[in-house]
Amino acid sequence: MNEHLPARAVAFDAYGTLFDVHSVRQLADTLFPGQGSALSQLWRTKQLEYTWLRALSDRYVDFWRVTEDALRYAANRLGLALDDADRTRLMDQYLRLLTFPEVGDVLRQLKGSGHGLAILSNGSPEMLEALCRHAGLDDLFDHVLSVDAVKTYKTDCRAYRLATHAFNLSPREMVFVSSNGWDVAAGAWFGFRTFWVNRTGLPHDELGVAPEAEGASLAELPAFLAPRH
Amino acid sequence: MNEHLPARAVAFDAYGTLFDVHSVRQLADTLFPGQGSALSQLWRTKQLEYTWLRALSDRYVDFWRVTEDALRYAANRLGLALDDADRTRLMDQYLRLLTFPEVGDVLRQLKGSGHGLAILSNGSPEMLEALCRHAGLDDLFDHVLSVDAVKTYKTDCRAYRLATHAFNLSPREMVFVSSNGWDVAAGAWFGFRTFWVNRTGLPHDELGVAPEAEGASLAELPAFLAPRH
Repeated sequence: MNEHLPARAVAFDAYGTLFDVHSVRQLADTLFPGQGSALSQLWRTKQLEYTWLRALSDRYVDFWRVTEDALRYAANRLGLALDDADRTRLMDQYLRLLTFPEVGDVLRQLKGSGHGLAILSNGSPEMLEALCRHAGLDDLFDHVLSVDAVKTYKTDCRAYRLATHAFNLSPREMVFVSSNGWDVAAGAWFGFRTFWVNRTGLPHDELGVAPEAEGASLAELPAFLAPRH
Repeated sequence: MNEHLPARAVAFDAYGTLFDVHSVRQLADTLFPGQGSALSQLWRTKQLEYTWLRALSDRYVDFWRVTEDALRYAANRLGLALDDADRTRLMDQYLRLLTFPEVGDVLRQLKGSGHGLAILSNGSPEMLEALCRHAGLDDLFDHVLSVDAVKTYKTDCRAYRLATHAFNLSPREMVFVSSNGWDVAAGAWFGFRTFWVNRTGLPHDELGVAPEAEGASLAELPAFLAPRH
């Protein structure tokens, strides 16, 4: 890794990378006992599928709407009677997800070492603002970037370009951090240096690119970013 | 439906619509007893995911490669030791899938009533040619259209446009038939009249468009296409 320029800025994916969607599963299981895991899994799968399809067909609607559409489908598919109140409660979880335990410390450490920090997410501006406020991270990021600015979704290169434009850096001067294998792969295609937060020990995606580094949490990121001696 | 022009041509999706991928599951279960269903399901999920990601990031490789990549990932993810011989056997299934029982009769009936017929598929030209030859359908289609001609995947509108260009028709003069809810939705976005082959009674996708008609098999398609009196 010594051949690389030191990374001047780091862009983080939000959902699953900084923010733990586990609380969605817990509430889902309270509402539909024994089905919480199936519901949250299918919800997430369809949420991503709908972002890809809408981006590819140029039919953008924002992530709040996509997330609600995906929830509706997942409940229908599983035969769960999801009333308006349940849907509202589940959707509201997306505004107050907790960060993973190491996130605050790691972000403060990177900020202390002079790195520019950004969120780069599919989430709508309102969703990301609510998340950051709820988690007390407002003052840590130089930029909170939503794909809504370009009305498409990852992995469209216009989404990733938001980060290089915000910092006025080339992709190789930045590190992109995501827990989503497909997101890390597309970030590498775009030209970012990449760090994969592989929290559950998944195999690499077979997309012809590998992350430059990976860790079981963000705790391993500062060492990766530190200049070598 | 009387307000529509009579459909002059019909474009069919291939995998799951005309051709049954069930034999893949059977072989997978022979190779990995008890895991065939999980393997074939994850294989298919990743295969589609990889087409969307590659199309969205403009990183096209053909469907044979995508299918093999997805198989490799699915086996890794499930912890299955997939050797070269197993992989070759599973991949070869994709060249000799059987048609669903009603397919031959329905296609011949539509051809007899003067409809133009096409396949419009993510499959590579070689894969589609092998499938049609194996199933004895060579002489029924006016066009066997592969997205390979435009180096992208559904749901990119350039994929659907292959069909309107081939017949020199507007989308509203054609019916697009697919068993994949997302494919039918994107076909409707493109402007096709759509018929959803909903073989397993799935709910509609929540993408803001509904198929014009649906049936549990292709058997209901000729009545839908017949001119009304």
